[in-house]
Amino acid sequence: MSKIKVGVSGYGVIGQRLADGVALQGDMELVGVADVAPTLPIRALFEKGMPYDLYLASNDYKDQFDKLGIPVEGSLEDLVQKCDVILDSAPGGIGIKNKVLYEKYGKKAIFQGGEKNEVADVFFHGYANYEKGLGAKYLKLTSCNTTGLIRSVDCLDKAYGLERVAITIIRRVADPGDYHRGLTNALRIDKAPSHQALDLMTIMPHVEATGILIHTPVTHGHIITVVATGKGKITKEMALEAFSKHPRIRIVNTDEGFVGNASLFKYARDLGNPRGDMYEIALWEDSVVESGNSIMYAINIPQEAVTIPETIDGIRALMGSQKNSFEGTTITNKYLGIGKWRKS
Amino acid sequence: MSKIKVGVSGYGVIGQRLADGVALQGDMELVGVADVAPTLPIRALFEKGMPYDLYLASNDYKDQFDKLGIPVEGSLEDLVQKCDVILDSAPGGIGIKNKVLYEKYGKKAIFQGGEKNEVADVFFHGYANYEKGLGAKYLKLTSCNTTGLIRSVDCLDKAYGLERVAITIIRRVADPGDYHRGLTNALRIDKAPSHQALDLMTIMPHVEATGILIHTPVTHGHIITVVATGKGKITKEMALEAFSKHPRIRIVNTDEGFVGNASLFKYARDLGNPRGDMYEIALWEDSVVESGNSIMYAINIPQEAVTIPETIDGIRALMGSQKNSFEGTTITNKYLGIGKWRKS
Amino acid sequence: MSKIKVGVSGYGVIGQRLADGVALQGDMELVGVADVAPTLPIRALFEKGMPYDLYLASNDYKDQFDKLGIPVEGSLEDLVQKCDVILDSAPGGIGIKNKVLYEKYGKKAIFQGGEKNEVADVFFHGYANYEKGLGAKYLKLTSCNTTGLIRSVDCLDKAYGLERVAITIIRRVADPGDYHRGLTNALRIDKAPSHQALDLMTIMPHVEATGILIHTPVTHGHIITVVATGKGKITKEMALEAFSKHPRIRIVNTDEGFVGNASLFKYARDLGNPRGDMYEIALWEDSVVESGNSIMYAINIPQEAVTIPETIDGIRALMGSQKNSFEGTTITNKYLGIGKWRKS
Amino acid sequence: MSKIKVGVSGYGVIGQRLADGVALQGDMELVGVADVAPTLPIRALFEKGMPYDLYLASNDYKDQFDKLGIPVEGSLEDLVQKCDVILDSAPGGIGIKNKVLYEKYGKKAIFQGGEKNEVADVFFHGYANYEKGLGAKYLKLTSCNTTGLIRSVDCLDKAYGLERVAITIIRRVADPGDYHRGLTNALRIDKAPSHQALDLMTIMPHVEATGILIHTPVTHGHIITVVATGKGKITKEMALEAFSKHPRIRIVNTDEGFVGNASLFKYARDLGNPRGDMYEIALWEDSVVESGNSIMYAINIPQEAVTIPETIDGIRALMGSQKNSFEGTTITNKYLGIGKWRKS
Repeated sequence: MSKIKVGVSGYGVIGQRLADGVALQGDMELVGVADVAPTLPIRALFEKGMPYDLYLASNDYKDQFDKLGIPVEGSLEDLVQKCDVILDSAPGGIGIKNKVLYEKYGKKAIFQGGEKNEVADVFFHGYANYEKGLGAKYLKLTSCNTTGLIRSVDCLDKAYGLERVAITIIRRVADPGDYHRGLTNALRIDKAPSHQALDLMTIMPHVEATGILIHTPVTHGHIITVVATGKGKITKEMALEAFSKHPRIRIVNTDEGFVGNASLFKYARDLGNPRGDMYEIALWEDSVVESGNSIMYAINIPQEAVTIPETIDGIRALMGSQKNSFEGTTITNKYLGIGKWRKS
Repeated sequence: MSKIKVGVSGYGVIGQRLADGVALQGDMELVGVADVAPTLPIRALFEKGMPYDLYLASNDYKDQFDKLGIPVEGSLEDLVQKCDVILDSAPGGIGIKNKVLYEKYGKKAIFQGGEKNEVADVFFHGYANYEKGLGAKYLKLTSCNTTGLIRSVDCLDKAYGLERVAITIIRRVADPGDYHRGLTNALRIDKAPSHQALDLMTIMPHVEATGILIHTPVTHGHIITVVATGKGKITKEMALEAFSKHPRIRIVNTDEGFVGNASLFKYARDLGNPRGDMYEIALWEDSVVESGNSIMYAINIPQEAVTIPETIDGIRALMGSQKNSFEGTTITNKYLGIGKWRKS
Repeated sequence: MSKIKVGVSGYGVIGQRLADGVALQGDMELVGVADVAPTLPIRALFEKGMPYDLYLASNDYKDQFDKLGIPVEGSLEDLVQKCDVILDSAPGGIGIKNKVLYEKYGKKAIFQGGEKNEVADVFFHGYANYEKGLGAKYLKLTSCNTTGLIRSVDCLDKAYGLERVAITIIRRVADPGDYHRGLTNALRIDKAPSHQALDLMTIMPHVEATGILIHTPVTHGHIITVVATGKGKITKEMALEAFSKHPRIRIVNTDEGFVGNASLFKYARDLGNPRGDMYEIALWEDSVVESGNSIMYAINIPQEAVTIPETIDGIRALMGSQKNSFEGTTITNKYLGIGKWRKS
Repeated sequence: MSKIKVGVSGYGVIGQRLADGVALQGDMELVGVADVAPTLPIRALFEKGMPYDLYLASNDYKDQFDKLGIPVEGSLEDLVQKCDVILDSAPGGIGIKNKVLYEKYGKKAIFQGGEKNEVADVFFHGYANYEKGLGAKYLKLTSCNTTGLIRSVDCLDKAYGLERVAITIIRRVADPGDYHRGLTNALRIDKAPSHQALDLMTIMPHVEATGILIHTPVTHGHIITVVATGKGKITKEMALEAFSKHPRIRIVNTDEGFVGNASLFKYARDLGNPRGDMYEIALWEDSVVESGNSIMYAINIPQEAVTIPETIDGIRALMGSQKNSFEGTTITNKYLGIGKWRKS
């Protein structure tokens, strides 16, 4: 069976990781990546010896590429023609413009959370609504917070049935190395409800959701607290039993040394994961508390890498190579090495 | 009627503000303040010309005071004898030792949140259980987060009846000028449930409470999100109506420019408040959202000053000068200038 | 003798402090302040009961002022006509536009550091070149870092003669309450030489200066290290003797508890200074080290307030009310309470 | 020729990287690593499948290792006996205690910067005094800042001759994942001169050095500004020519996107370097400025990894496998992949 040909448009924080993730899939071929300017990621690609072919989304900086000796394989339009699916990880608002090219050549595409929902046919999550993506033309992935949040909420809902969730998102304000946004000695609050709560309801319309988002001056992972109200009583043991079976949830506790988001970043670095990335969300065992029919818990969202598995799930849904969520996510997990650390 | 004679033991972040607050009360006399070493607050007191008499809790650094020319009025034991009530704001764990002195002279005292509950007869909050403090000998104040939290929870409970609350505390990790504790580019999580939830249940035993606390690397105010579940439906309008009548809750919104904890600190500085302090908690109008019988909202806790009014309420309860919460808090508010900013 | 009539255009971080500073001058009258929108400083002015009359620089937000009931005295043009001198503290780039109004009515003005040098006749510092400002029409103040830096460099130069300085500016990236700029877990470097070194040479052309600026994610004061090379040997004792006589330099050391920029902010708050401001720069005694003919030292720049005294000096120079730097700065210092903390 | 057998005692931030670095040396064998408790690095080692044998420095936590199923090869004493050289990266103050074991078995050792100088015969730097380490028994490595600083100062000194340096160290206060030390919204100053200046003079006694150190609340690399005064004029071109030939100095500039310490951390992650580490210091081309006979420049010190190459140089010096600095550092560089990114 021939491999699915995949291109990545936008080689930034997400694009780099999408490219690396696709390159690990035994049933996919990374055709190349596209960007505009000789940014640090492109310079790093060059210093590594161009493991991926580079295409240019515009010629605005072509002379700089030439001066630096960075080889260019062609244009974004060239890349699109060679692919079955394009993963669009261009900055928010560019994806909708790029879509014209994808339509011109009848190619499928997956957009990241920065685009408006209208860009796609289906707002997609690999676990919560994989089947809706089957055979679609355009998917939009949930954002990093929503992707991780839904893993845990869908997990509880499938196991025990949920009525409502109220979330508090303690958001990291920038990625390591970001200088164009930041926050210094301040917490910032957004108007409620947060878009993540609304997005959750779009994907899981049978669960009522609301939430408040607070930005914090850190870079290594969002933390979300969830108050999930079940149709019946959900005990701490019941919740942990369900969470512990989810391949993309890693259960940790503070006594092991996982005392915050930076511990998880450190651990992923110490594991030798490329870029110190982690695909799993972490869920603190010693954060889980009960109150009436509600269960409350805290999760950590590694914002740079968390959407990669669900995006690759999306390729499988679009192409129909796996027909349901279990099969789609299982093969993605296998190629990404997710869950291999579990005892059994 | 003679004034209540008050001393302050421990002239740090809280002690300074207690002294200033007591000095504003028309029916109280600040006898003096006690500390141990020529810290920055003591040096500032000296530079200001010693508006308050200084007593020494030990002679360990007496030579330094002499060398600097800072006048000392006597010992802590001297101060205790001159007072009706001692406000103990020494570092956590010292209060219980100081208590021996207070007992020796039969003086009443109020301890701050850093001491263990056993130090006092009553764990006190000016609005939620003022009457329990009437005529008691020793009170312990709720901590800064719990004090502010209970203002809002008690307010809703009295208006509409509450069954349970689930809180997320987004804690500022240090005060401005702290160098002995800190956190750099990290969120830190504590084991759940947080002590604030447990403390709330001690003060308000008819409400079930749980919560998760996350430390964040900022200095200007904690933010707490509260999911409060009513006995019946509580709408946003109902909640705001109750909150807007509470003298120690200031309703703000992001469109006015109050976009986070640092905006409130800035505003208090621009008001010309001493030290840029604010006694009120802020409650974001545009954070209030409904979900089932639950109302969710976010409040800001100005950690340096928030417990001052309730501590002064405690003096009134201990001395019995005002017989109920309404009278006690109203006169405290008047002398502290709380609520004068309200339109009506 | 009639008082000098002063208006302040731009009621932000600097403008508020200019207004407060002018209001303290016995020989000046603050006519009013101007701004555009009901920002937090304007709301605070209103909550305080309008101690200063407010004028509007545009009518864009007039309806909001009306809705909030904030009284408006007139337009910026009205204010200009009533003044002898306008202190322009509008955001960088607006001052040059406002200048048209000042010229129309033949009024003198002082611009802040955010404007280009061309806006003014003289680039001004109260100690280093007061006499150049005598009788001028338009002054531009040095920026906060340059103002504080020049105090110390001019002080050494006048005492012992300097050949060159090499500075490292460790810049606070935002003010408390700023959300529109920030930096999270990063140091940022600017191209060298820094503008502060170039500005120093404009004011003190006989001293060669260069320097590097690094932005840091803090809000409470810049720190500058200076390597000042004398024409002859300058010992630590010589340097400290000169510094200790300067009214706007406060000598501190780490053993007293002044261990960084946040200690100074805390101390100013504990002093009860409005907004926790300090006009003096701090110079760490235990940072002063010798190397050849060079003396190295570190100073703290309280960015929000440091330029206020030199701006008021500028009014005196413009109006010619004091004919030299010593007289001009001495009377400014007296009214601002600078130096009263000195032992002798 | 048989390989040099190396053990690592203390598997923390430095120890992990020493182990990885030694494992890359074609002429060395990593015998194993030792630690005390099942910390996050040990848990990561276990999750990776124990690529290195683990020895225990004490049995205090043996039951935890057993419970977790982490295999233990023996005691630290066992490890020492199997090695030619021990790299001691235990926390500061433990190395001197471990030394008893090394002496007992007559084994050579290299201590990290946290130990006192007396622990070793020679205070060592691979470029500045390699020859002093030849055949010694115990070396102590310079600390991270001093190691990187000396690379640049020794480089200029060898090329052109230096008289003195004055440094400003803008220190990152914690490593990513550190929770036991931190700083929030504050700069902290140490008493001058900084130990790094004194250490530089120990290694390079013919250069006079002084300096000031400021702690900043960031985690991704120290920045040092250096004012280096030559025996004669050193132009920017001369300085850059010397720096550009140094294998462990990477010249960058802000126009490429390297705008601060976090850019370098990001770049190393994007390169796919394990843990996002970088062995080279970065030197900003556009920070280099001249002043008299002085050249001023800024360097970035990647604190977690910068001492690894010089420590491995130290093994070569101790064992005498390479007889001079050029040979010793060249082979270390080759195995670590340092300098392969250079154009030619």
